[in-house]
Amino acid sequence: MGSTIKDIARLANVSKATVSRVINNKSEGVGEETKQKILRIIEELNYRPSLLARGLVTKRTHSLGLIIPDITNPFFPQLARGAEDTAAKHGYSLFLCNSDNSPEKEQRYIEAFIEKRIDGVMLASSISKSAIQSQIQLLKSVDIPFTLLDRYLEGSEPETGVFLDNQAGAYQATDYLLKNGHRRIVFVAGPLGVMTSWYRFQGFQMAHYDNGVEIDYSLVMEGDYQLSSGKELVERLIEAELEFTAIFAGNDMMAIGALKALQSRGIKIPETVEVIGFDNIELSSLVEPALTTVAQPTYEMGVKGAQMLIRVIEGEGIPERNVYLKPELLFRATTRHPVG
Amino acid sequence: MGSTIKDIARLANVSKATVSRVINNKSEGVGEETKQKILRIIEELNYRPSLLARGLVTKRTHSLGLIIPDITNPFFPQLARGAEDTAAKHGYSLFLCNSDNSPEKEQRYIEAFIEKRIDGVMLASSISKSAIQSQIQLLKSVDIPFTLLDRYLEGSEPETGVFLDNQAGAYQATDYLLKNGHRRIVFVAGPLGVMTSWYRFQGFQMAHYDNGVEIDYSLVMEGDYQLSSGKELVERLIEAELEFTAIFAGNDMMAIGALKALQSRGIKIPETVEVIGFDNIELSSLVEPALTTVAQPTYEMGVKGAQMLIRVIEGEGIPERNVYLKPELLFRATTRHPVG
Repeated sequence: MGSTIKDIARLANVSKATVSRVINNKSEGVGEETKQKILRIIEELNYRPSLLARGLVTKRTHSLGLIIPDITNPFFPQLARGAEDTAAKHGYSLFLCNSDNSPEKEQRYIEAFIEKRIDGVMLASSISKSAIQSQIQLLKSVDIPFTLLDRYLEGSEPETGVFLDNQAGAYQATDYLLKNGHRRIVFVAGPLGVMTSWYRFQGFQMAHYDNGVEIDYSLVMEGDYQLSSGKELVERLIEAELEFTAIFAGNDMMAIGALKALQSRGIKIPETVEVIGFDNIELSSLVEPALTTVAQPTYEMGVKGAQMLIRVIEGEGIPERNVYLKPELLFRATTRHPVG
Repeated sequence: MGSTIKDIARLANVSKATVSRVINNKSEGVGEETKQKILRIIEELNYRPSLLARGLVTKRTHSLGLIIPDITNPFFPQLARGAEDTAAKHGYSLFLCNSDNSPEKEQRYIEAFIEKRIDGVMLASSISKSAIQSQIQLLKSVDIPFTLLDRYLEGSEPETGVFLDNQAGAYQATDYLLKNGHRRIVFVAGPLGVMTSWYRFQGFQMAHYDNGVEIDYSLVMEGDYQLSSGKELVERLIEAELEFTAIFAGNDMMAIGALKALQSRGIKIPETVEVIGFDNIELSSLVEPALTTVAQPTYEMGVKGAQMLIRVIEGEGIPERNVYLKPELLFRATTRHPVG
């Protein structure tokens, strides 16, 4: 790993403490000539570890960490791009870690960020509520600034972060389906331990209530946000011969799984069953028929999250602690038409 | 940032050097009673920065870095998953960085990895040949172990890494099309500065040579590996009224773009034009018609790259410096049928 402080001290014929003082810009007691000699040797040796050693003193490392739960769900790479571009614009490096929805991995990565002296952390947390609580406590205990992205906790005063108004998005989609005459709508929920899923479920229920339509809860099923779960759950419904005329899925990946299940049974979309997803990942416009979905400003969420975190790190005020972005129902080919 | 060595020294009534010796497991000269007292205080203070400070002594940080050029191309998240899972299995954290195909960003991230004392780096480099050369030199100058993933340099002795036999894959796809009677095959190349693209182009040419078919080079076009470029290039060909009966694209994203261009003109796939992609990203089985493609063992590439890097870091030998994985032509619905 190259040269050490010891090597430099030996070559300059001074103590290690003197070298350390020069490296850390605390060279008041060191003569100018000695200082220049040490700096010259450092340059000649191409001494690098200094940056790490200096981290102990100067604190700021101009690096941010971002933890996402599932790198293979295209929603999160899109979010990461927004954060990355913003970090780069402000001169910060962004380190991305994939927790694979494991609270243990998430905690290990936060610890690794602490060890690496990351200036701040963005957290799109795993699916467990207790996990996110303990990750937040860990970050607070070491006083590292953080912002939550996308996934948040129940409570009157959520932590600093950028979120989507998930309930409004789900309400819009369900309300469209109900106003279009559907009475038996399947809801393929994401994991209900995740607040985003939970609020989408609330929006689904609220729209039914407002439209005076009762929900048959045998049509509500919990998936895991992955394509395969959407496919399997809808296949199971078809096998159980439960009637339904529309499917609203908690994310696009599960909605695409639902499309595949319907198509494999020859069920016509949107003639026989209308389908709506949530997220608007790139894939949703590429499948056939193209998926109607509740669009999130995903890239923007990453941008705003990074902006907010950098403001906190640099000691500037933030205008609001919680930003809620607005979803938008985007009509494509898996729905018939909006009712005027 | 919590407690410092100074605080601990004050509370234990010993020198900072003594505390440092205990933290760094070099406490030969320290009495057992003093040592226990210091360890108790460390525990009470929940002292964390020690891990960073210890990095200066113990060197190993059990963390790996992975730089990918485009996180929104699903090929790379898949690769990262393979690397992540393997790193976790061996007790390493994996820090992922997105270079956005920018050699400057790539270099900044490598410098950040060096500052953070990452134990080793995996590099799926950006598109520039000179960039990859200078990144490799930077890593060598500080003696950090690294392995290349997917993207490599021309030369008799490539650096340690895991690659695909790109030429063989492209040969297979082109040979199938030629044996199926096609004489005017469009080749939508990736950026030809990237060696993977270049070797795919070589395979395309070699198959023509072996089959005694001349190439019309006006059908060879260079894209940028993104969906939009595949779409635009094929639209341009159609507008120019150039004849062709098959398209082979340098990756799936561009092949899917080509599908969209053909479909928007009402050109039937595979009846009028056969299409083959490269990579086998998840998306390729989800588009309609499902894409025939040259499948890469992408996840496995990440696994093998991480295994190789960890062996190097831990001082174990590696059986071979370069691993070439085998691609496989996977027939789906954008081709008619293999010729027996």
